[in-house]
Amino acid sequence: MRATSTIATALNNGAKSIIPVDSVAECIKLGKQMEVITAGERDGQIADGLEYGNSPFTYPREFIKGKTLVLTTTNGTKLLHMALAENAKDIITGSFPNLSAVCNYITAQKQNVILACAAWKDRVNLEDTLFAGAVIDRVKESFSIKCDASKIAETLYREAKDDLYEFMKNKDASHYHRLTSFGLEKDIRYCFEIDADNVLPIYKEGRLIDRFI
Amino acid sequence: MRATSTIATALNNGAKSIIPVDSVAECIKLGKQMEVITAGERDGQIADGLEYGNSPFTYPREFIKGKTLVLTTTNGTKLLHMALAENAKDIITGSFPNLSAVCNYITAQKQNVILACAAWKDRVNLEDTLFAGAVIDRVKESFSIKCDASKIAETLYREAKDDLYEFMKNKDASHYHRLTSFGLEKDIRYCFEIDADNVLPIYKEGRLIDRFI
Repeated sequence: MRATSTIATALNNGAKSIIPVDSVAECIKLGKQMEVITAGERDGQIADGLEYGNSPFTYPREFIKGKTLVLTTTNGTKLLHMALAENAKDIITGSFPNLSAVCNYITAQKQNVILACAAWKDRVNLEDTLFAGAVIDRVKESFSIKCDASKIAETLYREAKDDLYEFMKNKDASHYHRLTSFGLEKDIRYCFEIDADNVLPIYKEGRLIDRFI
Repeated sequence: MRATSTIATALNNGAKSIIPVDSVAECIKLGKQMEVITAGERDGQIADGLEYGNSPFTYPREFIKGKTLVLTTTNGTKLLHMALAENAKDIITGSFPNLSAVCNYITAQKQNVILACAAWKDRVNLEDTLFAGAVIDRVKESFSIKCDASKIAETLYREAKDDLYEFMKNKDASHYHRLTSFGLEKDIRYCFEIDADNVLPIYKEGRLIDRFI
Protein backbone atom coordinates (compact mmCIF):
# COMPACT_ATOMS: atom_id res chain seq x y z
CA MET A 1 0.00 0.00 0.00
CA ARG A 2 2.52 2.62 1.05
CA ALA A 3 5.40 1.55 -1.19
CA THR A 4 3.34 1.65 -4.41
CA SER A 5 1.67 4.91 -3.36
CA THR A 6 5.08 6.40 -2.63
CA ILE A 7 6.34 5.26 -6.04
CA ALA A 8 3.36 6.93 -7.74
CA THR A 9 3.75 10.12 -5.72
CA ALA A 10 7.50 10.41 -6.22
CA LEU A 11 7.15 9.99 -9.98
CA ASN A 12 4.22 12.40 -10.06
CA ASN A 13 6.40 14.90 -8.24
CA GLY A 14 9.10 14.61 -10.86
CA ALA A 15 11.40 11.83 -9.64
CA LYS A 16 13.50 10.59 -12.57
CA SER A 17 13.16 6.94 -11.57
CA ILE A 18 12.74 4.54 -8.68
CA ILE A 19 15.07 1.58 -8.24
CA PRO A 20 13.34 -1.14 -6.20
CA VAL A 21 15.71 -3.38 -4.24
CA ASP A 22 15.02 -6.21 -1.85
CA SER A 23 17.42 -5.48 0.96
CA VAL A 24 18.66 -2.62 3.08
CA ALA A 25 22.23 -3.70 2.28
CA GLU A 26 21.63 -3.41 -1.47
CA CYS A 27 20.03 -0.01 -0.92
CA ILE A 28 23.05 1.23 1.03
CA LYS A 29 25.41 -0.18 -1.61
CA LEU A 30 23.66 1.66 -4.45
CA GLY A 31 23.61 4.80 -2.33
CA LYS A 32 27.39 4.71 -2.23
CA GLN A 33 27.78 4.00 -5.95
CA MET A 34 25.32 6.47 -7.43
CA GLU A 35 23.77 9.89 -6.87
CA VAL A 36 20.51 8.65 -5.36
CA ILE A 37 18.22 8.97 -2.37
CA THR A 38 18.02 5.80 -0.30
CA ALA A 39 14.82 4.87 1.43
CA GLY A 40 13.13 2.03 3.21
CA GLU A 41 11.54 0.94 6.44
CA ARG A 42 11.65 -2.01 8.72
CA ASP A 43 8.82 -2.31 11.22
CA GLY A 44 7.62 1.23 10.61
CA GLN A 45 10.96 2.97 11.19
CA ILE A 46 13.54 4.23 8.67
CA ALA A 47 15.93 1.29 8.33
CA ASP A 48 19.42 1.70 9.80
CA GLY A 49 21.79 3.11 7.20
CA LEU A 50 19.08 4.58 4.96
CA GLU A 51 18.08 8.23 4.69
CA TYR A 52 14.31 8.28 4.31
CA GLY A 53 11.17 6.29 4.98
CA ASN A 54 8.20 4.91 3.11
CA SER A 55 5.73 7.76 3.45
CA PRO A 56 4.43 9.50 0.31
CA PHE A 57 4.63 12.79 2.25
CA THR A 58 8.41 12.51 2.38
CA TYR A 59 8.66 13.13 -1.37
CA PRO A 60 7.22 16.53 -2.35
CA ARG A 61 8.20 18.04 -5.69
CA GLU A 62 10.76 20.46 -4.24
CA PHE A 63 12.65 17.52 -2.78
CA ILE A 64 12.34 14.69 -5.30
CA LYS A 65 12.18 16.43 -8.72
CA GLY A 66 14.86 15.09 -11.07
CA LYS A 67 16.21 12.66 -8.50
CA THR A 68 16.43 8.87 -8.39
CA LEU A 69 15.03 7.04 -5.40
CA VAL A 70 16.33 3.62 -4.31
CA LEU A 71 13.56 1.99 -2.32
CA THR A 72 13.68 -1.28 -0.42
CA THR A 73 10.39 -3.14 -0.44
CA THR A 74 10.73 -6.75 0.62
CA ASN A 75 7.40 -8.06 -0.61
CA GLY A 76 7.22 -5.82 -3.67
CA THR A 77 10.65 -6.75 -4.92
CA LYS A 78 9.95 -10.44 -4.42
CA LEU A 79 6.85 -10.04 -6.57
CA LEU A 80 8.85 -8.18 -9.20
CA HIS A 81 11.29 -11.07 -9.43
CA MET A 82 8.40 -13.51 -9.81
CA ALA A 83 7.03 -11.44 -12.68
CA LEU A 84 10.45 -11.29 -14.34
CA ALA A 85 10.79 -15.06 -13.94
CA GLU A 86 7.45 -15.49 -15.71
CA ASN A 87 8.64 -13.27 -18.56
CA ALA A 88 5.89 -10.72 -18.02
CA LYS A 89 5.70 -8.49 -21.08
CA ASP A 90 5.14 -5.38 -18.97
CA ILE A 91 5.36 -4.83 -15.24
CA ILE A 92 3.60 -1.81 -13.76
CA THR A 93 2.85 -0.81 -10.19
CA GLY A 94 -0.56 0.24 -9.01
CA SER A 95 -2.10 1.93 -6.00
CA PHE A 96 -5.25 3.95 -5.39
CA PRO A 97 -3.40 7.21 -6.15
CA ASN A 98 -2.82 5.98 -9.72
CA LEU A 99 -5.86 3.70 -10.15
CA SER A 100 -7.18 5.27 -13.35
CA ALA A 101 -3.76 5.29 -15.00
CA VAL A 102 -3.43 1.56 -14.26
CA CYS A 103 -6.94 0.69 -15.45
CA ASN A 104 -6.68 2.72 -18.64
CA TYR A 105 -3.34 1.17 -19.46
CA ILE A 106 -4.28 -2.49 -18.94
CA THR A 107 -7.56 -2.05 -20.81
CA ALA A 108 -5.80 -0.46 -23.78
CA GLN A 109 -3.10 -3.13 -23.95
CA LYS A 110 -5.50 -6.02 -24.67
CA GLN A 111 -3.15 -8.52 -23.06
CA ASN A 112 -3.59 -11.06 -20.27
CA VAL A 113 -3.15 -9.41 -16.89
CA ILE A 114 -2.15 -10.83 -13.53
CA LEU A 115 -2.95 -8.61 -10.55
CA ALA A 116 -0.24 -9.54 -8.08
CA CYS A 117 -0.67 -8.43 -4.47
CA ALA A 118 2.52 -7.85 -2.51
CA ALA A 119 0.82 -8.91 0.73
CA TRP A 120 2.41 -8.64 4.15
CA LYS A 121 4.98 -11.29 5.03
CA ASP A 122 3.32 -13.71 2.62
CA ARG A 123 -0.14 -13.23 4.13
CA VAL A 124 -3.22 -11.98 2.36
CA ASN A 125 -4.10 -8.47 3.44
CA LEU A 126 -7.14 -6.24 3.14
CA GLU A 127 -5.55 -3.22 1.46
CA ASP A 128 -3.97 -5.09 -1.46
CA THR A 129 -7.15 -7.09 -1.98
CA LEU A 130 -9.19 -3.88 -1.99
CA PHE A 131 -6.96 -2.38 -4.66
CA ALA A 132 -7.14 -5.52 -6.83
CA GLY A 133 -10.92 -5.39 -6.38
CA ALA A 134 -11.03 -1.75 -7.45
CA VAL A 135 -9.14 -2.57 -10.64
CA ILE A 136 -11.43 -5.53 -11.41
CA ASP A 137 -14.52 -3.43 -10.72
CA ARG A 138 -13.35 -0.92 -13.33
CA VAL A 139 -11.95 -3.16 -16.04
CA LYS A 140 -14.05 -6.32 -15.85
CA GLU A 141 -16.10 -5.59 -18.95
CA SER A 142 -12.92 -5.73 -21.02
CA PHE A 143 -11.63 -9.03 -19.63
CA SER A 144 -12.71 -12.61 -19.18
CA ILE A 145 -12.15 -13.37 -15.49
CA LYS A 146 -12.08 -17.00 -14.39
CA CYS A 147 -10.44 -16.89 -10.99
CA ASP A 148 -12.41 -16.89 -7.74
CA ALA A 149 -9.85 -14.72 -5.98
CA SER A 150 -10.76 -11.90 -8.37
CA LYS A 151 -14.42 -12.32 -7.50
CA ILE A 152 -13.69 -12.24 -3.80
CA ALA A 153 -11.57 -9.09 -4.23
CA GLU A 154 -14.26 -7.35 -6.26
CA THR A 155 -16.98 -8.23 -3.75
CA LEU A 156 -14.82 -6.89 -0.95
CA TYR A 157 -14.12 -3.66 -2.80
CA ARG A 158 -17.77 -3.03 -3.63
CA GLU A 159 -18.62 -3.48 0.02
CA ALA A 160 -15.87 -1.08 1.08
CA LYS A 161 -15.77 1.51 -1.66
CA ASP A 162 -17.99 4.17 -0.12
CA ASP A 163 -15.27 4.78 2.46
CA LEU A 164 -12.16 2.67 2.17
CA TYR A 165 -10.53 4.26 5.19
CA GLU A 166 -13.54 3.60 7.41
CA PHE A 167 -13.72 0.04 6.12
CA MET A 168 -10.11 -0.60 7.11
CA LYS A 169 -10.76 0.99 10.47
CA ASN A 170 -14.00 -0.89 11.14
CA LYS A 171 -12.44 -4.20 10.19
CA ASP A 172 -9.43 -3.38 12.34
CA ALA A 173 -7.23 -4.43 9.40
CA SER A 174 -3.81 -5.58 10.53
CA HIS A 175 -2.03 -2.88 8.52
CA TYR A 176 -4.40 -0.17 9.75
CA HIS A 177 -3.55 -1.28 13.24
CA ARG A 178 0.18 -1.32 12.48
CA LEU A 179 0.30 2.11 10.82
CA THR A 180 -1.93 3.90 13.28
CA SER A 181 0.24 2.59 16.09
CA PHE A 182 3.03 4.63 14.43
CA GLY A 183 0.78 7.69 14.06
CA LEU A 184 0.42 7.21 10.30
CA GLU A 185 -3.34 7.76 9.82
CA LYS A 186 -2.49 10.51 7.33
CA ASP A 187 -0.55 8.02 5.20
CA ILE A 188 -3.44 5.59 5.14
CA ARG A 189 -5.86 8.32 4.08
CA TYR A 190 -3.51 9.41 1.30
CA CYS A 191 -3.03 5.82 0.10
CA PHE A 192 -6.80 5.57 -0.44
CA GLU A 193 -7.05 8.83 -2.40
CA ILE A 194 -8.07 7.71 -5.83
CA ASP A 195 -6.19 9.36 -8.70
CA ALA A 196 -4.12 11.77 -6.68
CA ASP A 197 -1.23 10.88 -9.05
CA ASN A 198 -1.74 10.51 -12.77
CA VAL A 199 1.36 8.42 -13.44
CA LEU A 200 2.05 4.92 -14.69
CA PRO A 201 5.18 3.44 -13.12
CA ILE A 202 6.56 0.88 -15.55
CA TYR A 203 9.59 -1.33 -14.98
CA LYS A 204 12.39 -0.94 -17.53
CA GLU A 205 15.93 -2.19 -17.07
CA GLY A 206 15.88 -2.27 -13.31
CA ARG A 207 14.00 0.98 -12.79
CA LEU A 208 10.44 2.19 -12.47
CA ILE A 209 9.83 5.20 -14.69
CA ASP A 210 6.67 7.11 -15.56
CA ARG A 211 5.41 5.75 -18.87
CA PHE A 212 3.55 8.99 -19.56
CA ILE A 213 6.77 10.96 -19.87
CA MET B 1 -17.36 -28.30 -0.54
CA ARG B 2 -18.68 -31.66 -1.68
CA ALA B 3 -16.17 -33.85 0.14
CA THR B 4 -16.83 -32.30 3.57
CA SER B 5 -20.60 -32.25 2.96
CA THR B 6 -20.46 -35.91 1.94
CA ILE B 7 -18.50 -36.73 5.10
CA ALA B 8 -21.13 -34.98 7.24
CA THR B 9 -23.99 -36.66 5.42
CA ALA B 10 -22.50 -40.15 5.49
CA LEU B 11 -21.87 -39.90 9.25
CA ASN B 12 -25.32 -38.43 9.82
CA ASN B 13 -26.76 -41.39 7.93
CA GLY B 14 -24.98 -43.82 10.20
CA ALA B 15 -21.62 -44.49 8.54
CA LYS B 16 -19.23 -45.98 11.10
CA SER B 17 -16.27 -43.94 9.91
CA ILE B 18 -14.67 -42.25 6.92
CA ILE B 19 -11.05 -42.91 6.01
CA PRO B 20 -9.66 -40.01 4.00
CA VAL B 21 -6.82 -40.93 1.64
CA ASP B 22 -4.93 -38.83 -0.86
CA SER B 23 -4.81 -41.10 -3.88
CA VAL B 24 -7.01 -43.38 -5.92
CA ALA B 25 -4.34 -46.09 -5.61
CA GLU B 26 -4.45 -45.96 -1.80
CA CYS B 27 -8.24 -46.07 -1.92
CA ILE B 28 -8.20 -49.18 -4.12
CA LYS B 29 -5.58 -50.79 -1.86
CA LEU B 30 -7.68 -50.29 1.28
CA GLY B 31 -10.72 -51.54 -0.60
CA LYS B 32 -8.93 -54.86 -1.14
CA GLN B 33 -7.71 -55.13 2.45
CA MET B 34 -10.85 -54.18 4.36
CA GLU B 35 -14.62 -54.36 4.23
CA VAL B 36 -15.18 -50.80 3.03
CA ILE B 37 -16.83 -48.70 0.35
CA THR B 38 -14.35 -46.92 -1.90
CA ALA B 39 -15.19 -43.54 -3.32
CA GLY B 40 -13.62 -40.62 -5.09
CA GLU B 41 -13.76 -38.49 -8.18
CA ARG B 42 -11.35 -37.09 -10.66
CA ASP B 43 -12.64 -34.28 -12.83
CA GLY B 44 -16.25 -34.87 -11.85
CA GLN B 45 -16.35 -38.60 -12.66
CA ILE B 46 -16.01 -41.61 -10.39
CA ALA B 47 -12.30 -42.39 -10.53
CA ASP B 48 -11.26 -45.57 -12.36
CA GLY B 49 -11.12 -48.50 -9.95
CA LEU B 50 -13.42 -46.93 -7.32
CA GLU B 51 -17.05 -47.75 -6.67
CA TYR B 52 -18.75 -44.47 -5.86
CA GLY B 53 -18.49 -40.71 -6.30
CA ASN B 54 -18.40 -37.58 -4.22
CA SER B 55 -22.06 -36.69 -4.06
CA PRO B 56 -23.84 -36.56 -0.69
CA PHE B 57 -26.87 -38.11 -2.40
CA THR B 58 -24.94 -41.32 -2.99
CA TYR B 59 -24.96 -42.08 0.75
CA PRO B 60 -28.50 -42.45 2.13
CA ARG B 61 -29.02 -44.25 5.43
CA GLU B 62 -30.18 -47.51 3.86
CA PHE B 63 -26.88 -47.73 2.00
CA ILE B 64 -24.23 -46.34 4.33
CA LYS B 65 -25.44 -47.23 7.84
CA GLY B 66 -22.78 -49.15 9.77
CA LYS B 67 -20.30 -49.05 6.92
CA THR B 68 -16.87 -47.51 6.51
CA LEU B 69 -16.22 -45.21 3.57
CA VAL B 70 -12.74 -44.70 2.13
CA LEU B 71 -12.77 -41.36 0.35
CA THR B 72 -10.02 -39.83 -1.78
CA THR B 73 -9.87 -36.06 -1.50
CA THR B 74 -6.64 -34.66 -2.85
CA ASN B 75 -6.82 -31.18 -1.34
CA GLY B 76 -8.54 -32.23 1.87
CA THR B 77 -6.04 -34.95 2.67
CA LYS B 78 -3.13 -32.59 1.99
CA LEU B 79 -4.65 -30.19 4.51
CA LEU B 80 -5.10 -32.99 7.01
CA HIS B 81 -1.41 -33.85 6.76
CA MET B 82 -0.51 -30.20 7.31
CA ALA B 83 -2.64 -30.13 10.44
CA LEU B 84 -1.05 -33.34 11.71
CA ALA B 85 2.42 -31.92 11.03
CA GLU B 86 1.49 -28.86 13.13
CA ASN B 87 0.38 -31.13 15.97
CA ALA B 88 -3.17 -29.83 15.92
CA LYS B 89 -4.90 -30.88 19.11
CA ASP B 90 -8.14 -31.67 17.30
CA ILE B 91 -8.96 -31.87 13.63
CA ILE B 92 -12.59 -31.59 12.57
CA THR B 93 -14.21 -31.14 9.19
CA GLY B 94 -16.82 -28.52 8.48
CA SER B 95 -19.35 -27.73 5.79
CA PHE B 96 -22.62 -25.83 5.68
CA PRO B 97 -24.60 -29.01 6.45
CA ASN B 98 -22.84 -29.20 9.84
CA LEU B 99 -22.15 -25.50 10.44
CA SER B 100 -23.77 -25.27 13.88
CA ALA B 101 -22.06 -28.41 15.12
CA VAL B 102 -18.68 -26.94 14.11
CA CYS B 103 -19.35 -23.52 15.61
CA ASN B 104 -20.67 -24.90 18.88
CA TYR B 105 -17.70 -27.20 19.22
CA ILE B 106 -14.95 -24.65 18.55
CA THR B 107 -16.61 -22.08 20.80
CA ALA B 108 -16.89 -24.57 23.66
CA GLN B 109 -13.27 -25.75 23.36
CA LYS B 110 -11.72 -22.34 24.12
CA GLN B 111 -8.62 -23.17 22.07
CA ASN B 112 -6.89 -21.43 19.19
CA VAL B 113 -8.54 -22.34 15.91
CA ILE B 114 -7.21 -22.36 12.37
CA LEU B 115 -9.86 -22.47 9.67
CA ALA B 116 -8.11 -24.26 6.85
CA CYS B 117 -9.69 -24.15 3.40
CA ALA B 118 -8.99 -27.10 1.13
CA ALA B 119 -9.18 -24.88 -1.96
CA TRP B 120 -9.09 -26.17 -5.52
CA LYS B 121 -5.70 -27.17 -6.89
CA ASP B 122 -4.01 -24.77 -4.47
CA ARG B 123 -6.16 -21.83 -5.52
CA VAL B 124 -8.46 -19.79 -3.33
CA ASN B 125 -12.09 -20.52 -4.07
CA LEU B 126 -15.41 -18.90 -3.27
CA GLU B 127 -17.18 -21.80 -1.57
CA ASP B 128 -14.47 -22.55 1.02
CA THR B 129 -14.06 -18.85 1.75
CA LEU B 130 -17.83 -18.51 2.22
CA PHE B 131 -17.86 -21.35 4.71
CA ALA B 132 -14.91 -19.90 6.66
CA GLY B 133 -16.77 -16.56 6.65
CA ALA B 134 -19.92 -18.22 7.98
CA VAL B 135 -17.99 -19.74 10.87
CA ILE B 136 -16.31 -16.41 11.68
CA ASP B 137 -19.63 -14.58 11.49
CA ARG B 138 -21.05 -16.94 14.12
CA VAL B 139 -18.12 -17.35 16.50
CA LYS B 140 -16.28 -14.03 16.32
CA GLU B 141 -17.50 -12.74 19.67
CA SER B 142 -15.72 -15.65 21.35
CA PHE B 143 -12.37 -15.19 19.60
CA SER B 144 -9.73 -12.56 19.03
CA ILE B 145 -9.21 -12.46 15.26
CA LYS B 146 -6.09 -10.80 13.91
CA CYS B 147 -5.84 -12.07 10.37
CA ASP B 148 -7.06 -10.11 7.37
CA ALA B 149 -8.04 -13.26 5.47
CA SER B 150 -10.70 -13.88 8.14
CA LYS B 151 -12.07 -10.40 7.67
CA ILE B 152 -12.22 -10.83 3.92
CA ALA B 153 -14.02 -14.17 4.33
CA GLU B 154 -16.53 -12.72 6.76
CA THR B 155 -17.26 -9.73 4.51
CA LEU B 156 -17.80 -12.08 1.58
CA TYR B 157 -20.15 -14.30 3.59
CA ARG B 158 -22.24 -11.39 4.85
CA GLU B 159 -22.63 -10.19 1.29
CA ALA B 160 -23.64 -13.67 0.11
CA LYS B 161 -25.60 -15.11 3.00
CA ASP B 162 -29.12 -14.25 1.90
CA ASP B 163 -28.74 -16.76 -0.92
CA LEU B 164 -25.44 -18.60 -1.13
CA TYR B 165 -26.46 -20.55 -4.19
CA GLU B 166 -27.47 -17.43 -6.09
CA PHE B 167 -24.26 -15.72 -5.04
CA MET B 168 -22.17 -18.56 -6.48
CA LYS B 169 -24.26 -18.48 -9.63
CA ASN B 170 -24.12 -14.71 -10.05
CA LYS B 171 -20.37 -14.65 -9.52
CA ASP B 172 -19.99 -17.55 -11.93
CA ALA B 173 -17.75 -19.20 -9.33
CA SER B 174 -15.33 -21.64 -10.94
CA HIS B 175 -16.70 -24.59 -8.95
CA TYR B 176 -20.31 -23.63 -9.69
CA HIS B 177 -19.34 -23.63 -13.33
CA ARG B 178 -17.56 -26.98 -13.01
CA LEU B 179 -20.34 -28.77 -11.13
CA THR B 180 -23.22 -27.44 -13.19
CA SER B 181 -21.39 -28.59 -16.32
CA PHE B 182 -21.75 -32.10 -14.84
CA GLY B 183 -25.42 -31.53 -14.00
CA LEU B 184 -24.74 -31.25 -10.26
CA GLU B 185 -26.86 -28.20 -9.34
CA LYS B 186 -28.63 -30.39 -6.77
CA ASP B 187 -25.31 -31.13 -5.06
CA ILE B 188 -24.45 -27.44 -4.84
CA ARG B 189 -27.84 -26.63 -3.31
CA TYR B 190 -27.44 -29.39 -0.75
CA CYS B 191 -23.90 -28.27 0.12
CA PHE B 192 -25.30 -24.85 1.06
CA GLU B 193 -28.08 -26.25 3.25
CA ILE B 194 -27.18 -25.08 6.70
CA ASP B 195 -27.48 -27.69 9.44
CA ALA B 196 -28.89 -30.52 7.38
CA ASP B 197 -26.55 -32.82 9.33
CA ASN B 198 -26.02 -32.48 13.06
CA VAL B 199 -22.68 -34.28 13.22
CA LEU B 200 -19.13 -33.37 14.14
CA PRO B 201 -16.60 -35.35 12.12
CA ILE B 202 -13.43 -35.57 14.20
CA TYR B 203 -10.19 -37.20 13.13
CA LYS B 204 -8.96 -40.03 15.35
CA GLU B 205 -6.30 -42.57 14.40
CA GLY B 206 -6.70 -42.23 10.67
CA ARG B 207 -10.50 -42.04 10.62
CA LEU B 208 -13.18 -39.41 10.78
CA ILE B 209 -15.88 -40.39 13.25
CA ASP B 210 -18.88 -38.54 14.61
CA ARG B 211 -17.89 -37.04 17.94
CA PHE B 212 -21.50 -36.91 19.06
CA ILE B 213 -21.74 -40.69 19.14
